[in-house]
Amino acid sequence: MALSKKPVNGMKDILPAEMEIRDYVTSVIKDTYRSFGFTPIETPCMENIANLTSKQGGENEKLIFKVMKRGEKLNLETAKEESDVVDFGMRYDLTVPLSRYYSNNANNLPSPFKALQMGSVWRADRPQRGRYRQFTQCDIDILGEPSNLAEIELITATTTTIGRLGFENFEIRINERRILKAMAAYSGFAEEDYDSVFITLDKMDKIGVEGVASELAQDGYPQENIDKYLDLFKLLEQTRDVTEGVNILSEKLGEYLDEEVVTNMTEIATAVNATKGAKFELVFDPTLVRGMSYYTGTIFEISMPELGAACGGGGRYDKMIGKFTGNDVPACGFSIGFERIILLLMESGFKIPESPKKVAYLVEKKYPADKLVDVMNQAKDARANGQQVLVVRMNKNKKFQKEQLMKEGYEEFVEFFNR
Amino acid sequence: MALSKKPVNGMKDILPAEMEIRDYVTSVIKDTYRSFGFTPIETPCMENIANLTSKQGGENEKLIFKVMKRGEKLNLETAKEESDVVDFGMRYDLTVPLSRYYSNNANNLPSPFKALQMGSVWRADRPQRGRYRQFTQCDIDILGEPSNLAEIELITATTTTIGRLGFENFEIRINERRILKAMAAYSGFAEEDYDSVFITLDKMDKIGVEGVASELAQDGYPQENIDKYLDLFKLLEQTRDVTEGVNILSEKLGEYLDEEVVTNMTEIATAVNATKGAKFELVFDPTLVRGMSYYTGTIFEISMPELGAACGGGGRYDKMIGKFTGNDVPACGFSIGFERIILLLMESGFKIPESPKKVAYLVEKKYPADKLVDVMNQAKDARANGQQVLVVRMNKNKKFQKEQLMKEGYEEFVEFFNR
Repeated sequence: MALSKKPVNGMKDILPAEMEIRDYVTSVIKDTYRSFGFTPIETPCMENIANLTSKQGGENEKLIFKVMKRGEKLNLETAKEESDVVDFGMRYDLTVPLSRYYSNNANNLPSPFKALQMGSVWRADRPQRGRYRQFTQCDIDILGEPSNLAEIELITATTTTIGRLGFENFEIRINERRILKAMAAYSGFAEEDYDSVFITLDKMDKIGVEGVASELAQDGYPQENIDKYLDLFKLLEQTRDVTEGVNILSEKLGEYLDEEVVTNMTEIATAVNATKGAKFELVFDPTLVRGMSYYTGTIFEISMPELGAACGGGGRYDKMIGKFTGNDVPACGFSIGFERIILLLMESGFKIPESPKKVAYLVEKKYPADKLVDVMNQAKDARANGQQVLVVRMNKNKKFQKEQLMKEGYEEFVEFFNR
Repeated sequence: MALSKKPVNGMKDILPAEMEIRDYVTSVIKDTYRSFGFTPIETPCMENIANLTSKQGGENEKLIFKVMKRGEKLNLETAKEESDVVDFGMRYDLTVPLSRYYSNNANNLPSPFKALQMGSVWRADRPQRGRYRQFTQCDIDILGEPSNLAEIELITATTTTIGRLGFENFEIRINERRILKAMAAYSGFAEEDYDSVFITLDKMDKIGVEGVASELAQDGYPQENIDKYLDLFKLLEQTRDVTEGVNILSEKLGEYLDEEVVTNMTEIATAVNATKGAKFELVFDPTLVRGMSYYTGTIFEISMPELGAACGGGGRYDKMIGKFTGNDVPACGFSIGFERIILLLMESGFKIPESPKKVAYLVEKKYPADKLVDVMNQAKDARANGQQVLVVRMNKNKKFQKEQLMKEGYEEFVEFFNR
């Protein structure tokens, strides 16, 4: 009866070296976010399947791990379709569960509610290198705060956290769904085409202005609109400053762009730039789209020089809680790319600061039991003094044993022989 | 399109007050176990269904949440039985995954390997008060250590952890599968009846000696054997001391009890008692059975005066890793009843020691954006000084808002008005 040694396809065992970094990063994240008044919460890893397939999750809804009904509720023989045999699904993100949680518990939660969630999510993606079907997400969200205090706190808390993890010279790129729409409207695109235009715009960093132009032309949009649209992006190339950027746009777009959007973006930029807790730049990126359809206002993303891709992002989604309760609640969130941060730290040979001294006590195999008590008491005192003490039997090949332990970070060895 | 607000049946949302205690307990557990040289590891929450249904899990195997195959592999129409549509299952404990992990990664792990696992497990139990279908387990295990150094370290680490969480006057009850067997053999029971006899013995704390006697009689065992068996337990009632207990037994059972077992138990008791890091008593409990069939040597359980039931337990299981690899590896583990500890702390009104001061900044709604920068900077400084600072807009009903915040633990309020 040989059992399978491998983890399930596409998921991974986490080895001690990585685990140590994950635990350290988790504690920095939790401590920092807590200092900003974010409250950790947890929801079950499974949700009712109807909640997960309500079109809030976009493409992720195709990747759900589904859980079979149990006992009398399961009748395979009469089952015709999936819904006959499935009742739960594994969550594919933490946003749908948060919305449900808030709807379920609002009476017992403060308003506004600042939530911190760290937890596994599951997506049945095709397995590929460095990408796993179970991974950790780390989200902060502020529910019930309509003003830009939410954006300011989210961006400041997230950047402070990333700074404490040793990263600098990263960027927070920011945009606004209403700016995206105003630019499209000004250029003559019809409202029903916005989403299609934005999908193309989203590729700007990969295919460039010419690529976007030709893809829009292929999609059959009038050349006049395309030219007008792309001229706006060229105009904005002169600055990455948020306040400057939105003011240039405001002047150009006139009534297409609500003055409130300009004020809002300016206020966010002013506050974030004046209270930075890390070395980063806040930049205006009019090409930033963010895929999820639920965003209603500001959107933002973390760009790391070490990474080709974004390392987290978020935005305002004022209409999602209403899907559960019928009453909209202002909501804004920011998610850190936890797995990418771990990968970057692992690759850079990151050493955890101020970790306890690791000492190994090697005790001869024939060491008498009564004397072992003294060893254990010595270990007890050292542990009480903040040392990490491993008490192990001395192997026959002591040299190899020590080499192994040094790989695990043990830097001091105490040997106990029965003399 | 109203969605369901409730968590899935039998699972729960964790509210901020409980979450705070869970996070605190988790950090005490991880810090303490780390100081003993235990290394945190993680495995995926799903396992291949064959690994979960290999009879290692006993009754728990009936409670598996099963995950449906996906894509082309799923063909509901031709499916006749569960195995046609299921490939993965949610883990119901952390022991089977640990055995698989060790088999998969042994070449990259030190020997002996001291593992710490904290994670969710799932059991499709009938939902009942205070018992959930997703819950956290917390296990430490030492793999590759044949000597009782494993038992000594496991018991000392676990009791130190529980002591640091504020518990005292608890008991560690200890027994040995080989003592159980020797007592049964001495009394004349046949080896094939041991498991059935032990199932009855396990009820001693509920039904008493008379109850056990009559149940064994009902099961058809000779009265002579029953009397001889129960006389042993009466004989042992005079002491709870491990060394005394096993010596009494040794004298009585003679060759039925291997002298090595007596030495082993005595050594464990001596070392544990001499190096206690908490106020607890180590007691010999010859009625302790522990259900799982995989135990091969020592077994132990935590008894709390505050609880009717056990609050964790463990033992030696030297034959399980071999199920994966074909080569047995000595193994011993101890599991803390995480959820029961959380429940006890919640009910006792536990306050987290040395938690940061919580200060709320209430900012008037019309506070100008440029002055908000000063507020944010003041918050930044306070956070850097270790305070937990919540910056929120002042609600119309400020009194109610403050009352709410006081419930969340905020003890100081700073109000910002535009004057």
